[in-house]
Amino acid sequence: MTRPITLFTGQWADLSFEEVARLASGWGYDGLEIACWGDHLDPWQAAEDPGYLASRKEILDRYGLQVFAISNHLKGQAVCDDPIDARHRGMLPDRIWGDGEAEGVRQRAAEEMKLTARAARGLGVDVVVGFTGSSIWKYVAMFPPVSQDLVDAGYQDFADRWNPILDVFDAEGVRFAHEVHPSEIAYDYWTTVAALDAIGHRPAFGLNWDPSHFVWQDLDPVGFLWDFKDRIYHVDCKDAKRQVGNGRNGRMGSHLAWADPRRGWDFVSTGHGDVPWEACFRMLNTIGYDGPISVEWEDAGMDRLVGAPEALQFVRSKLFDKPTAAFDAAFASG
Amino acid sequence: MTRPITLFTGQWADLSFEEVARLASGWGYDGLEIACWGDHLDPWQAAEDPGYLASRKEILDRYGLQVFAISNHLKGQAVCDDPIDARHRGMLPDRIWGDGEAEGVRQRAAEEMKLTARAARGLGVDVVVGFTGSSIWKYVAMFPPVSQDLVDAGYQDFADRWNPILDVFDAEGVRFAHEVHPSEIAYDYWTTVAALDAIGHRPAFGLNWDPSHFVWQDLDPVGFLWDFKDRIYHVDCKDAKRQVGNGRNGRMGSHLAWADPRRGWDFVSTGHGDVPWEACFRMLNTIGYDGPISVEWEDAGMDRLVGAPEALQFVRSKLFDKPTAAFDAAFASG
Amino acid sequence: MTRPITLFTGQWADLSFEEVARLASGWGYDGLEIACWGDHLDPWQAAEDPGYLASRKEILDRYGLQVFAISNHLKGQAVCDDPIDARHRGMLPDRIWGDGEAEGVRQRAAEEMKLTARAARGLGVDVVVGFTGSSIWKYVAMFPPVSQDLVDAGYQDFADRWNPILDVFDAEGVRFAHEVHPSEIAYDYWTTVAALDAIGHRPAFGLNWDPSHFVWQDLDPVGFLWDFKDRIYHVDCKDAKRQVGNGRNGRMGSHLAWADPRRGWDFVSTGHGDVPWEACFRMLNTIGYDGPISVEWEDAGMDRLVGAPEALQFVRSKLFDKPTAAFDAAFASG
Amino acid sequence: MTRPITLFTGQWADLSFEEVARLASGWGYDGLEIACWGDHLDPWQAAEDPGYLASRKEILDRYGLQVFAISNHLKGQAVCDDPIDARHRGMLPDRIWGDGEAEGVRQRAAEEMKLTARAARGLGVDVVVGFTGSSIWKYVAMFPPVSQDLVDAGYQDFADRWNPILDVFDAEGVRFAHEVHPSEIAYDYWTTVAALDAIGHRPAFGLNWDPSHFVWQDLDPVGFLWDFKDRIYHVDCKDAKRQVGNGRNGRMGSHLAWADPRRGWDFVSTGHGDVPWEACFRMLNTIGYDGPISVEWEDAGMDRLVGAPEALQFVRSKLFDKPTAAFDAAFASG
Amino acid sequence: MTRPITLFTGQWADLSFEEVARLASGWGYDGLEIACWGDHLDPWQAAEDPGYLASRKEILDRYGLQVFAISNHLKGQAVCDDPIDARHRGMLPDRIWGDGEAEGVRQRAAEEMKLTARAARGLGVDVVVGFTGSSIWKYVAMFPPVSQDLVDAGYQDFADRWNPILDVFDAEGVRFAHEVHPSEIAYDYWTTVAALDAIGHRPAFGLNWDPSHFVWQDLDPVGFLWDFKDRIYHVDCKDAKRQVGNGRNGRMGSHLAWADPRRGWDFVSTGHGDVPWEACFRMLNTIGYDGPISVEWEDAGMDRLVGAPEALQFVRSKLFDKPTAAFDAAFASG
Amino acid sequence: MTRPITLFTGQWADLSFEEVARLASGWGYDGLEIACWGDHLDPWQAAEDPGYLASRKEILDRYGLQVFAISNHLKGQAVCDDPIDARHRGMLPDRIWGDGEAEGVRQRAAEEMKLTARAARGLGVDVVVGFTGSSIWKYVAMFPPVSQDLVDAGYQDFADRWNPILDVFDAEGVRFAHEVHPSEIAYDYWTTVAALDAIGHRPAFGLNWDPSHFVWQDLDPVGFLWDFKDRIYHVDCKDAKRQVGNGRNGRMGSHLAWADPRRGWDFVSTGHGDVPWEACFRMLNTIGYDGPISVEWEDAGMDRLVGAPEALQFVRSKLFDKPTAAFDAAFASG
Repeated sequence: MTRPITLFTGQWADLSFEEVARLASGWGYDGLEIACWGDHLDPWQAAEDPGYLASRKEILDRYGLQVFAISNHLKGQAVCDDPIDARHRGMLPDRIWGDGEAEGVRQRAAEEMKLTARAARGLGVDVVVGFTGSSIWKYVAMFPPVSQDLVDAGYQDFADRWNPILDVFDAEGVRFAHEVHPSEIAYDYWTTVAALDAIGHRPAFGLNWDPSHFVWQDLDPVGFLWDFKDRIYHVDCKDAKRQVGNGRNGRMGSHLAWADPRRGWDFVSTGHGDVPWEACFRMLNTIGYDGPISVEWEDAGMDRLVGAPEALQFVRSKLFDKPTAAFDAAFASG
Repeated sequence: MTRPITLFTGQWADLSFEEVARLASGWGYDGLEIACWGDHLDPWQAAEDPGYLASRKEILDRYGLQVFAISNHLKGQAVCDDPIDARHRGMLPDRIWGDGEAEGVRQRAAEEMKLTARAARGLGVDVVVGFTGSSIWKYVAMFPPVSQDLVDAGYQDFADRWNPILDVFDAEGVRFAHEVHPSEIAYDYWTTVAALDAIGHRPAFGLNWDPSHFVWQDLDPVGFLWDFKDRIYHVDCKDAKRQVGNGRNGRMGSHLAWADPRRGWDFVSTGHGDVPWEACFRMLNTIGYDGPISVEWEDAGMDRLVGAPEALQFVRSKLFDKPTAAFDAAFASG
Repeated sequence: MTRPITLFTGQWADLSFEEVARLASGWGYDGLEIACWGDHLDPWQAAEDPGYLASRKEILDRYGLQVFAISNHLKGQAVCDDPIDARHRGMLPDRIWGDGEAEGVRQRAAEEMKLTARAARGLGVDVVVGFTGSSIWKYVAMFPPVSQDLVDAGYQDFADRWNPILDVFDAEGVRFAHEVHPSEIAYDYWTTVAALDAIGHRPAFGLNWDPSHFVWQDLDPVGFLWDFKDRIYHVDCKDAKRQVGNGRNGRMGSHLAWADPRRGWDFVSTGHGDVPWEACFRMLNTIGYDGPISVEWEDAGMDRLVGAPEALQFVRSKLFDKPTAAFDAAFASG
Repeated sequence: MTRPITLFTGQWADLSFEEVARLASGWGYDGLEIACWGDHLDPWQAAEDPGYLASRKEILDRYGLQVFAISNHLKGQAVCDDPIDARHRGMLPDRIWGDGEAEGVRQRAAEEMKLTARAARGLGVDVVVGFTGSSIWKYVAMFPPVSQDLVDAGYQDFADRWNPILDVFDAEGVRFAHEVHPSEIAYDYWTTVAALDAIGHRPAFGLNWDPSHFVWQDLDPVGFLWDFKDRIYHVDCKDAKRQVGNGRNGRMGSHLAWADPRRGWDFVSTGHGDVPWEACFRMLNTIGYDGPISVEWEDAGMDRLVGAPEALQFVRSKLFDKPTAAFDAAFASG
Repeated sequence: MTRPITLFTGQWADLSFEEVARLASGWGYDGLEIACWGDHLDPWQAAEDPGYLASRKEILDRYGLQVFAISNHLKGQAVCDDPIDARHRGMLPDRIWGDGEAEGVRQRAAEEMKLTARAARGLGVDVVVGFTGSSIWKYVAMFPPVSQDLVDAGYQDFADRWNPILDVFDAEGVRFAHEVHPSEIAYDYWTTVAALDAIGHRPAFGLNWDPSHFVWQDLDPVGFLWDFKDRIYHVDCKDAKRQVGNGRNGRMGSHLAWADPRRGWDFVSTGHGDVPWEACFRMLNTIGYDGPISVEWEDAGMDRLVGAPEALQFVRSKLFDKPTAAFDAAFASG
Repeated sequence: MTRPITLFTGQWADLSFEEVARLASGWGYDGLEIACWGDHLDPWQAAEDPGYLASRKEILDRYGLQVFAISNHLKGQAVCDDPIDARHRGMLPDRIWGDGEAEGVRQRAAEEMKLTARAARGLGVDVVVGFTGSSIWKYVAMFPPVSQDLVDAGYQDFADRWNPILDVFDAEGVRFAHEVHPSEIAYDYWTTVAALDAIGHRPAFGLNWDPSHFVWQDLDPVGFLWDFKDRIYHVDCKDAKRQVGNGRNGRMGSHLAWADPRRGWDFVSTGHGDVPWEACFRMLNTIGYDGPISVEWEDAGMDRLVGAPEALQFVRSKLFDKPTAAFDAAFASG
């Protein structure tokens, strides 16, 4: 028995939820990781309209799809970010943006994250995937000089803003799976350690393991699973390809758009990049992860209608089971 | 004859200018790249006090030191930066910080950069080294999504703010040498291309080549010299060591302090890192750079009183001259 | 819609043109890159026999094949080569070899190249693929010492011999696509730069991009496409495998025959070597190349009847289209 | 025509011989490399029961399977080992173990190896695959200091114990194929040279080439085939994956069990590891090896019922034939 | 002030203690790490002869040398080893070897280790460096199959034999520093973890960090210091050079003698190998190690009278102090 | 005692022999490897003028210099080369060039090589270093297709032309040491094997080991010494630096001049390149080479008056002796 493979709907939110369900089902996906944007899932409507979640489930049932997690990266991002600017305006609905005053945006985003936990519970799902934002990401270059106090304050700000949200998660019996990612409070190995410390390692806060940002930062996605084995609450499959090596393309991407060949790395369809997928899936077996494997499809150089079904086949081919006995057990048969 | 080797005084500004001159002279440096902070050089005083620059020169003369360039990274940084925050407060004098209102800070910083050109001229120096700052560095992760318009606006902001400054440089016959560096408008190869495009390739704007930030971004410092050979206005020797490879230390540094062994890279004394110095110096010979070689000494794991003289000896040992004829010319002697 | 994939017939010239057409069609190729040797295509006959080209087209039509380019490497090679020797005798027809006097061979070869342009035009094709030869390839070791004058004379010889040929190309509205290759005037990146300089960058002269010789010379075939994007007139897919690493096999091949395991590199069927095909095809998308992708099949360790259809499937699997919008466009659907 | 692909039954000895034959046949294997343990093949019974070997052959025939080699690693191991301990008890049948007194165990194991040659002959097979054991493997760390005399004595012990066995092999017209492997007298390149020297290069003693232990020792399995081309008597396909690189996993395996992710390397299903299979199979073509290719399936992280048929397909896809003529022969068709 | 640098006398035990003291002092060493063999230091004599230790100290004083640790690798090795054989006979004195019966040897060796703690105390030294031996090192290949029980029993045997020894160490206020090394209970990262677990992490048992065996096992000696920072009781400087890469030399050494160029790695004089010494010394600064740096000189390709003084100079050149403030503190001087 | 270090005078032939002797002596060289061009050594004059060689020796004596080998690369080159062209004209004296007719040039060059053996004998020297030339180097690209017959003919031509020369060497008791080098009959590992085969492994023909051309061809200079240990007649120290890695610089050098940074590799002063000198010198110790170590100084980016004495110091620092006993011998002192 292989584990369920889901499609994350976030990059398909220009299509209706039903259309995405129809496509995913047709390609053979087992379920959806539903994004809380587009018309896919609206936590406010879930809170306000008693029949709303049932209507979502009905669509899933119609296409034979399951749901194991829902996602709300875009609103989670706004909880801690500083500054709040045109980038956020571009991805936030009016209800959250309001007048754009930064602290108001942050608080409304926090409110939506609480509602997202409740929507998850309403859907019978116990994991919400997302981002945290960060007030200190902008200090990443460490110049102008950044004092330890400034860094510490950033982790504290994260804890202060997320603890009340996580209290709601606890109340609902839902866990938050943060995706380790540039722009976030935890964007690599040691910032993950620091973020978990900041939040007191409370069980409500864990990780969405997405290896795409590991490979270009020279982080080992396999060892990460081992070291944080009790915090792996969800798995997203996104891939990335390093494009450095000519001396001109840099690790930081040069402010260039996706698919520009001068970037030092780029997102590519799962299986087309540098993530050692087989070793990752073997490690997931080893640590006993038994949740869904979700394809988060991003590749600015490939037609998504070709890529998404191909990624499903790729992932499925690597999800072999562990054996029931070691091979050398047979040597004792003499 | 080898080229003059200078010591950049910026990391010694806790000491008096005379004390730095005394140390550098004692170690054998040929001159100083004088920083416009501490009591080393004050462009405002230079503008206001007719005898000020002569007093600086007198100190140099007393210790047998020359000057080829002066530097003003800290104020240049504030010209374009957004946001202006506690980090800037920590490194700006009251005269620039004022009430801390961002736009006022930026304009006062720009004013000081103009004065810096005049101080350079007054000292008989035709290069000012420094930073530009950047309003778009904070977008480096490209998430939340950054439109091309936002990126373009950042380069335009840079041009709008620096062109008036560079007009003063032109008037004074001085050139600005920007140090390619994270946090700046040009922080790698392709952003250097874009920044030069933004400023219309005007000769007043060139580069201070400092390879330390190249090695951890996987950029080739040697090829950079070749490709931008007509823009290399100054050379700073700072070194960096990659500390990735264990799967846990990341390229972005994890918000950790200098000398923390968990950082993915760190500054080290010249000759102790990954910069291929000999190849760099050979390329400087090839492109005909004949300015000073300046040691910008940064190493949070080494006593600077040991490191600075060692760096001088290291650099001097690599500055051999080109031959007057190729070795195979002698084969025609048959 | 994927681009047409053709089979280059040069390595199949021991078979009749019709037999090659039958095989290629049966395997699913979209067309042929027809070689001007064997009985495949004879430029002299095309010039002399009014019905000849129609007979070629009839065969293509019979097998549902298209033609986008014709090739004449073997005669192009003889245009500049010096010395002309037994190797040329082995690959040139009597009509070109004549009495074997070198200058006569070169001039007859040049004449055939002009006829090849006319044959292309007659077939409705606007690209001729081929080699240039080189009078200075033999100097590659730079010992005995080679003066700059000798090198310059080689590029000039190339220009002098090819400009009159290219005049005919211009007259016919056909372009020549030179394959960058050892033995030729342009065999790597910088010799390509020099050759284009020598010919004044006239549009009639461009490149047939074949990455097989790039990988063992440590050249980047992807970056080459970017840097020469306006000169990529045709694409040949040939692959090569480095076999160095044991300290005994050398980059230069040791005068050993193909498939000898002691060679430092060898040709292998497309997809079996070190060419990063996916990155190459992505870059072809980026630069907007819309011509044919032609399989030039060479592998001395593999049965060609197995390899040629496999190579077709390999190439087709990598030729996915670009998307119509970037994946993060969907994040604005909130 | 591709070469026969067999399945080694050693890791399937918990199943009955017939069950293994049924499985292998169903997956498409051409034959079996039969292990002399479990109920698969018993050399003593073959010697004592005239109808025994016919009964084995009958099972093979029933499932359309061939046999080219039989294997007896477990008893061969005991011939030279010192000490003989609990590990041997775990893999030896009572008949060999007896009272466990070391020298008695070794002699009974040697006796079985002679019988194995006779059983091979009886089955019409001329290769026995196996291990030799080693009295000096335990000295591998070379500390406490190991004198050259001690090492020499180990090779002599090997020769003394195996020469009488090989005499029987010669008498039966059967050859022994030793698998180069840690724990054995020959475990890498130079110990293979020394072992062949010790045994006087007698033709009865050759090698079972199994590349899995080469890759983690940094040995080149391709070059090994070339250098020992006249001693390659059998081929086993087992794969291994290096898992070093995080600075913590070591080459020696840390006494950790198979599939533990902290090991520095592990066995994996053929095609999932670091063995360069295509280069290996090309080299087997070059040296003229025409025996069976046998899959020795070991992967403690994969269900063998999934892995064994997949390995067969993998191997078959790489076993393409050599061409009848080189590709550039067609260039002489002009 | 740099830390004291000592010379380990173990490889000089063919010379008298006084002669070694004379040499080391002449080269500029600060002290000796005294070996308990040759005539250098005899724990039995120390226990039996009240004036013995004073006589040792007198020699040290005469040559101006200090002592911070004593070493007893050879007897420690015999505590757990199995089998006990000719190798041990070669390095053990008659008093320990006795009749050579294994268990007796082990117990007499254990007794000497207790006496070594007392001798250390008598010399005013609180660290004894050495080896533990191991009953399971011989299982390193994991074939014949090794059950988890067998491995566990090996660690238990280590604990059972060393706990009584360590009780004496505790009583004397001395700590044991085990050198991680093939042949020992802890020979790499994960076996160090397991050994510390087996011994209950009692403070009496720590580590002698010697990086020479790390580099050829692909272990990171720098990260090891960080992870075991509270167990680094002593530092030995020995270097090793990897000699793999030609496909023939293997990691396991092929039972070849030191300095044989066919070995996959070899010991070399400190600074001549692959140990990243500067990064190691920086990390020692970071973790606050303030003990001696001891040169354990082993290089079978170099005259030790040349090598030992050169190693001292090499080590001293790398032992620079940390700064008192970070370089960017000076940026706040504006 | 370290081995003698000599300076090869070939690249100094624009200076008088006495001037070179004066310089070399002043820098501390032990002797000269005298080139047979410039006014350094003329084999014809040696044959014709009875007092000539004594005059050379007198100069050596005056400066306290020894001679162990003489060199005649330039004339050796002309023995087999085809074509003979302007490059040869540039490096041959009129006496050899004559009317420039190729076969005459070759024969006169062969004659000079015989005289060179006699001059060596006259100087009391038993090694002549040099080149062979090659009639097949120009086929290195293997296109146009090169038949095995053509390659074989090249080796035969070499044997036919050099055997008579070597007969004279045998008569004089002198050996020829061929420098493995592009443009020569033996330019890498396998061509060295073939050349030795062609000449029947006659002892008169051996090798001048110069590792500079090994590193950029990916050949292992250390293993070469081991494999050809009985043919290492002389050692030249020249270094080379790979400059590939940016995807544009190629292994073949692009017909670019020395010191051009776009070349894929370049000659550099000994110790400044990629040759692993220490491993090489250790291997020379291992194989028992006891001849001179000669510095052949070539670096088009460095002043030779700086480089030549620096190279001497570098080489001397690496020429440490082997020990008289292994380090672990001392462990038996217990």
